[in-house]
Amino acid sequence: MRKLLFTIAASLLLVTMYAQNMKAVKLNTPDKTRGTSVMKALSDRHSDREFAVKELSLQDLSDLLWAANGINRPDGKRTAPSALNKQDIDVYVIMKEGAYLYDAKDNSLQPVAAGDHRAAVAGGQDFVKSAPVSLVLVSDLSRFGSVTDQVKLMAAVDAGTVCQNINIFCAATGLATVPRASMDQAALKQILKLTESQLPIMNNPVGYPKK
Amino acid sequence: MRKLLFTIAASLLLVTMYAQNMKAVKLNTPDKTRGTSVMKALSDRHSDREFAVKELSLQDLSDLLWAANGINRPDGKRTAPSALNKQDIDVYVIMKEGAYLYDAKDNSLQPVAAGDHRAAVAGGQDFVKSAPVSLVLVSDLSRFGSVTDQVKLMAAVDAGTVCQNINIFCAATGLATVPRASMDQAALKQILKLTESQLPIMNNPVGYPKK
Repeated sequence: MRKLLFTIAASLLLVTMYAQNMKAVKLNTPDKTRGTSVMKALSDRHSDREFAVKELSLQDLSDLLWAANGINRPDGKRTAPSALNKQDIDVYVIMKEGAYLYDAKDNSLQPVAAGDHRAAVAGGQDFVKSAPVSLVLVSDLSRFGSVTDQVKLMAAVDAGTVCQNINIFCAATGLATVPRASMDQAALKQILKLTESQLPIMNNPVGYPKK
Repeated sequence: MRKLLFTIAASLLLVTMYAQNMKAVKLNTPDKTRGTSVMKALSDRHSDREFAVKELSLQDLSDLLWAANGINRPDGKRTAPSALNKQDIDVYVIMKEGAYLYDAKDNSLQPVAAGDHRAAVAGGQDFVKSAPVSLVLVSDLSRFGSVTDQVKLMAAVDAGTVCQNINIFCAATGLATVPRASMDQAALKQILKLTESQLPIMNNPVGYPKK
């Protein structure tokens, strides 16, 4: 038992050290003219569960994240509206090399956990692990003050608006994605070090379409 | 008391007759190439609460509704994804002359109630009454089978995706809109003849921007 506890403690220490060794990733300036027209993108919008074996380019990742929930005005407001402008949705970026938090102000990815945690996003659905990137949309309910059923509904609407930004951006730029509500919530809460009031609501695996 | 009941009954009859006299409105074929690029639209996306005193053109209304939740594929799938493809969100269109239901299959507005019911969408916020059109996003929870808290969250996400289609379409075409959760739920349920399982979640007043 003592040995087991030691092993667990050592593993946790190792994971923490790895995460500390991870570096923040500076994102590119988003291309704010890119993509097909909005009506063409809505015409092409569909769910895709097959991905090419290819990493997303830094420009595509940068544009994708800004489209999802970037800052589009000097006062800090976002591409996605939020209830009472509480900006409750945080976008976590899960890739082979690690899990990151999208920092919209700094236009960067902040390290959260080293290693490949795409299986936690997949839950039971293996196709998700073949996408180079999964975006997990997490509402921090504490930004609304008290947590009520009504607040959870507002958070879900807010996750929906960010999710549709992702879907439309992908349709406009030829990327493949599918909006999903299922995931291994318990595992993700631990990996992403979420508090009690942080609720993962939706996720979008994203990649280039399989030819 | 008898007289009051008679007056109420007569009023209800009159309202029903008016609704029966309302005609379905055939919508125009949507322009599926219209609007700025998706990234430009996301760059311009913001909430606007002031509207010009001008009716929406039939083409703008037709494009707006198709963008919101139109059919974009031969298999009947929509511009907005929905949980388990249950297509639970219905779009009600509230205008000065009456309230209608958007029929995506028929590309038309089906009459629901005669008269100006924009005050019920406004709730306490008078600016809403100055928009020529308000779209009310109603989830029919019965399409998921049983109604649970989890189902309500899925419905709220689905309302969010339709709502963001509206927000982005307006940004791409120079229309003014604001996403709102507040409205007179009880009045709307009665006016729109909603069942117990139909839940109004969001609404978007839409118009031309005030110069």
